[in-house]
Amino acid sequence: MSASPWRATRATVNPGLFAAALLSGTCATAAPGPSHPTAGAIDILAQSAASDWRPVDAENTLYLELDSGRVVFELAPQFAPLHVANLKTLVREKYFDGLTIVRVADDYLTEWEDSTGKRPTGTAATMLPAEFSSPIRAWQPFTPLPDGDVYAPQVGFSGGFPVARDPKTHEQWLVHCYGMLGLGRDDAATSGFGGSPFVVIGNARNLDRNDTLLGHVVQGIELLSTLPRGPSPRGFFDKPAEHIPIRAMRVAADVPPRERTEVEVLRTDTATFKAYVEARRNPPKGWYLQPAGHVDVCGVRVASRRVAPEVAK
Amino acid sequence: MSASPWRATRATVNPGLFAAALLSGTCATAAPGPSHPTAGAIDILAQSAASDWRPVDAENTLYLELDSGRVVFELAPQFAPLHVANLKTLVREKYFDGLTIVRVADDYLTEWEDSTGKRPTGTAATMLPAEFSSPIRAWQPFTPLPDGDVYAPQVGFSGGFPVARDPKTHEQWLVHCYGMLGLGRDDAATSGFGGSPFVVIGNARNLDRNDTLLGHVVQGIELLSTLPRGPSPRGFFDKPAEHIPIRAMRVAADVPPRERTEVEVLRTDTATFKAYVEARRNPPKGWYLQPAGHVDVCGVRVASRRVAPEVAK
Repeated sequence: MSASPWRATRATVNPGLFAAALLSGTCATAAPGPSHPTAGAIDILAQSAASDWRPVDAENTLYLELDSGRVVFELAPQFAPLHVANLKTLVREKYFDGLTIVRVADDYLTEWEDSTGKRPTGTAATMLPAEFSSPIRAWQPFTPLPDGDVYAPQVGFSGGFPVARDPKTHEQWLVHCYGMLGLGRDDAATSGFGGSPFVVIGNARNLDRNDTLLGHVVQGIELLSTLPRGPSPRGFFDKPAEHIPIRAMRVAADVPPRERTEVEVLRTDTATFKAYVEARRNPPKGWYLQPAGHVDVCGVRVASRRVAPEVAK
Repeated sequence: MSASPWRATRATVNPGLFAAALLSGTCATAAPGPSHPTAGAIDILAQSAASDWRPVDAENTLYLELDSGRVVFELAPQFAPLHVANLKTLVREKYFDGLTIVRVADDYLTEWEDSTGKRPTGTAATMLPAEFSSPIRAWQPFTPLPDGDVYAPQVGFSGGFPVARDPKTHEQWLVHCYGMLGLGRDDAATSGFGGSPFVVIGNARNLDRNDTLLGHVVQGIELLSTLPRGPSPRGFFDKPAEHIPIRAMRVAADVPPRERTEVEVLRTDTATFKAYVEARRNPPKGWYLQPAGHVDVCGVRVASRRVAPEVAK
C-alpha cells in the first residue's frame, strides 16, 4: 500500500540525517530538504558536481538558536543591503537574545520580536528606506522559469533566491515563498527596520512588495513549521507563557568555527539547476501519470546541504 | 513594533476560540481559519449573512480522531463519488482505528496507512477507476478566479473546493491546495482505493491530476501541520515508535449528535465570496502599500466555522 512516488528512492539523505554524516567527518551528500523533490530531482542532486554548489558566506549567515535546535539563514545583501546590515547590527548587539516567537500563523508565517517594546536598539537604525524591490542590475544572474506567474510578469532565481521581475519598470523583488526571511513592519514603509523578523511557512504571496525580504532558511525550517499555532486570529499567542523562547541570534562569522553549521546551497545559474527545475516540471515516467509540465516559483525549493566543518587547527 | 497588517483587527475569533463560543451555546462568529485572511476579508466574514454559509452534511463529514484532538473533513462526492463511497466503507469498517500517521513531509503532505499491509479491507474495493478528473457538468456551480494559474487554463471554486478546468477538453479537477484530502496510490492509477489518505500541508500542485482528491479539512488542520516531520527524505518516519497514533476515523452521521463537531463552510457561489476574494486581491488601504491585485487559487482559503450543535432531545 505504498502511497507515493517517492518511496522508491528513499536512499538519499535529508537534513535530518546530515548530523550523522557530519559526525563521521565526511561530506554529506545532496539534500533536497525535507520537501517535495521529485525522484528525478533527487537523482539530479545525487549526481551533481561539487561546482554545482556554493558555500554560504559566514558573514551573511545568521543562526536562530531555539531550545529545539538551530535555524540557519542565508542573507541576501544583493537585494536588501540596508536591512541586512541593520539586522546584523541588531544581532551583534544581542538584541534578540532572550526574546520570543510571538506569532505562528498556520499556512502563513512565524514571527519574533520584543513584545514589550522596551529593549534598546543600540546603534541600529529604527527607520530605514524600504527595500521592497530594487532595480534590475545587469551583473545579477537570473534564471527565468518558463511557466509564468499569477502575481508578476516574470519569475525565476537569482543567487539561490526566488525573484520576480517587471521588465517594463526594470524592477525586481524577492518572492514570499516557503522559507523566506522578511522583516515585519508597522504601517509606515520605513518601519521594518529589523526588530520583527518573520519566516514564511505557507502561502504568503499577497505580501510581495509589501515588506523587505532579506534571506532564506537553509537548514532547520522544520523547527519553525512545526511550532504550535497561535490561537488568536492571525496567529499571535494570547499569553506570554505561550511564546517560544529564543536563546540567541548570531552571525555565523562570530561563532567559533567548530560550532558553526556549514551549509552549501545549490547554485541556480547552472545546467544542473535547469535540469532540477525540469525534473519538477516533468518528472521521469513511473509514478507520475500526468506530469504537471509546469512549475510555479514557490514549487521549486532550492536545495541546501550540510557539509563537514573545517577543523580548527 | 507591530509587525503586521492584521494585528489591528485581532477581535475576530478563529477556530481555536470557537470552543468558548460553543460552550456558551451561542453560534460562533465567522472564522477565516488561522491563516492569511486580510483585514478586509475578515470584515467581510464578520458582516456576512447566515445565507452566505452552508452546513456540512454529516453523511459527507469524516472525523480523524488523534490524541491531540479531532480533524474534520468535508467530502466531495460530486468530484469523486466512487472514492468517497469506498473511503466511507473503510471508515465504517473501522479500518483506520489504531493505525498511524506514517509520513509528514515538510511543505508537502502528511499521510496515514496500514504500514504492515495486513489489515483486512473487508467489503471495500482495493482497486477503483481513477477519479483524478471529471467532465465539467452544467449543474455544478463554478466561480472563476480572474488572475490565471501556472498549472491550468482556468481555476476557481465549486461547492467550496478549489477546482481547475480545461475548457478545451471539458475536464475539471480538484486542486492540491493546503488542506485538501487525497488518496495515495502505488504506480497503478487504480491503486488509490483509500487505504493511504493524505492531507496537503504545503506546495503540492505537482500532484494535480495524479491522484484522487476527495475532500478538505474544515477544522483542525493545525493538528496535522504541526506534527513532527519525518526524518527520511520524503517525510516517512524511520521507526514505528515515531508514528502518530490514530484513535479512530468516523463518519459524522455515525457519531451521536451531541458528540459531533458542527461546521459551516462559506458558500463560494455568492456575492459575499466574490467580495472575500477581492479583499485578498486588493486589501483595503492601510497596511498594504502595494496590493497584489492578484490571487492564486491556493491563496484563497475557503472559510469555515464551528456552530453550536443541535441539542439532542
